Amino acid sequence: MAKLFVPYYITRRLYSGGGGITARKYVLTKYFKGEPKISDFQVIEEKLPDLKEGEILTEAEYLSVDPYMRAYMIGYKLPTDMIGGQVAKIIASRNKNYPVGKYVVGSFGWRTHTVCDPKVPEKLGFIPITLLPDIDPHPRSLGLGVLGMPGNTAHFGLKEICRPKPGETIAITGAAGAVGSHVGQIGKMLGCKVIGFAGSDEKCQYLKKELGFDHAFNYKSANIRQALKEGAPQRIDCYFDNVGGEISTAIMNHMNKNGRVAVCGSVSSYNDEKLPKVTILQPAIVFKELVVEGFLVNRWVDRWNEGITANLKLLNEGKLKYQEKVYHGFDNMVDALVGMLQGENTGKAIVKVK
Amino acid sequence: MAKLFVPYYITRRLYSGGGGITARKYVLTKYFKGEPKISDFQVIEEKLPDLKEGEILTEAEYLSVDPYMRAYMIGYKLPTDMIGGQVAKIIASRNKNYPVGKYVVGSFGWRTHTVCDPKVPEKLGFIPITLLPDIDPHPRSLGLGVLGMPGNTAHFGLKEICRPKPGETIAITGAAGAVGSHVGQIGKMLGCKVIGFAGSDEKCQYLKKELGFDHAFNYKSANIRQALKEGAPQRIDCYFDNVGGEISTAIMNHMNKNGRVAVCGSVSSYNDEKLPKVTILQPAIVFKELVVEGFLVNRWVDRWNEGITANLKLLNEGKLKYQEKVYHGFDNMVDALVGMLQGENTGKAIVKVK
Repeated sequence: MAKLFVPYYITRRLYSGGGGITARKYVLTKYFKGEPKISDFQVIEEKLPDLKEGEILTEAEYLSVDPYMRAYMIGYKLPTDMIGGQVAKIIASRNKNYPVGKYVVGSFGWRTHTVCDPKVPEKLGFIPITLLPDIDPHPRSLGLGVLGMPGNTAHFGLKEICRPKPGETIAITGAAGAVGSHVGQIGKMLGCKVIGFAGSDEKCQYLKKELGFDHAFNYKSANIRQALKEGAPQRIDCYFDNVGGEISTAIMNHMNKNGRVAVCGSVSSYNDEKLPKVTILQPAIVFKELVVEGFLVNRWVDRWNEGITANLKLLNEGKLKYQEKVYHGFDNMVDALVGMLQGENTGKAIVKVK
Repeated sequence: MAKLFVPYYITRRLYSGGGGITARKYVLTKYFKGEPKISDFQVIEEKLPDLKEGEILTEAEYLSVDPYMRAYMIGYKLPTDMIGGQVAKIIASRNKNYPVGKYVVGSFGWRTHTVCDPKVPEKLGFIPITLLPDIDPHPRSLGLGVLGMPGNTAHFGLKEICRPKPGETIAITGAAGAVGSHVGQIGKMLGCKVIGFAGSDEKCQYLKKELGFDHAFNYKSANIRQALKEGAPQRIDCYFDNVGGEISTAIMNHMNKNGRVAVCGSVSSYNDEKLPKVTILQPAIVFKELVVEGFLVNRWVDRWNEGITANLKLLNEGKLKYQEKVYHGFDNMVDALVGMLQGENTGKAIVKVK
């Protein structure tokens, strides 16, 4: 389970060192209980080493907050550096492929400055450190969204796990989030009918009016079974599940025979101390002969650039829309994480470091 | 959902007629609520027609009671003939491939006599009507067990959905039932470690001593998490799920990355009026990247004989053991169904008509 993101001991090997610069970083010292709290962390300073041949020194511009962060930390021994993606500027370099002034996307964690050899994570099977392409006039933070891990999660998860055919109906929960809103747009481009579930009327309007979803329902106020009848009279062929919970059982019970479910996350239960109970899935799975498959995006590390390139092409053609919820300040990482888990964001939640 | 077993309107077209003989049959007139009851049925007489060219007249020797019967009837409009498999003797024939005195296995439902054209079900995509091979000294009732639908469910479900590799660990719930006990034996032949969960200490002893299961636990008395630690220290690679329920969540949480789950049934909830709630599966599915696939055995109707032949070979080589719980009398069908649902049987539950 730890393989998707660089764990502590490897973090140390990869990224620590020294070198005149002092980094600030978040160290998790208590496992989350309920919502993450600032008191679960210590923010400490760390002297970075001089660069060795092949290494670069980066300064974080944007940090990512993602649902997986709430679920993953239980897998690490404490204390541990907090995990997470960054868009960072190269401010010193002894690697000619990574010149000063360029930006990289890397899983450096919640820290301001990093020393690393950009080739190492990929060699170890982790998400690679990539140079951010020139995406002007779009913000560089897209390297954490449609052009990064969430973008690849949407691209590969929908195409490889759900395998939708034109004319089929796709349901998406967490539909206004970074991954869900991207999945829906790809679904429409593939010629599918797309039904989204999100947490506010405003989000639903955005999905329908801006992103072209056929239907969007506020799961907090809608009668889910009624919404499914109304939005998917031909029932559901593909379900992209970001949330788990009771709504997922209802959706699976509204699926067609041989439907495919991509289980991307279970955010509805991440803050619970004990996993909640919901109506069992097995009757739907067996009688409809569903395939319910969980996936982590690092499954496609070998094809990482294929996803980024596909999404960049869509972005450049104006076919891929995005929205960001930008939090500000390195000191506000926990607030950003909590806000994202509460659904404050439409699209990708990120933190601008300065 | 109705495709696995011949529904009412097709039953009429296929099997009804007339011809001097009077059949007795069970007609379901009320949907089951909780345990099936005799008052949910009417047992009526039906005059059968004369045989047309290609048709046969059969007399039931053994009737099957299977878990699916409890779950399926909700899919039919009432009143409807009760569905189910039979081993039946051909007592009149206008089809030279099906001579008088031979026995067939067919999905004729709960009825004593049947007129049918044996080629029709297969043409329509239903489980075929097959001649029972000579299996002396074994009882003909095996046509409803290891040499019939449950046998093919075990053969194809394990091999095609779980795809176990030698050395892997397979968990099975409902392990002492017709399908589960068969799955475990195939698992052992494939070089796997096999862990079964069943409903009594006696069943567990049978699984270990007679069928060669590595471990068997009484799910009614065991601490499931402790049992999994003890029985599967290398965790579970394949799970053959016959029961659903909380135990299935516990097992999926004890699986290895990229584990495969064949969802064959959900018998733990069949008698419930409202589907029960259990701890959600999604966290295990996503973080372990499990594939959870439901299946109905009619998926392999085109390969039906391949499964029967494979199981017959194992039986003839003495590699496949079986046990039967035989109920007696056409009037006791409901008692047999209820008893099987309560877990009275080890191995296959059948009813000897006379």
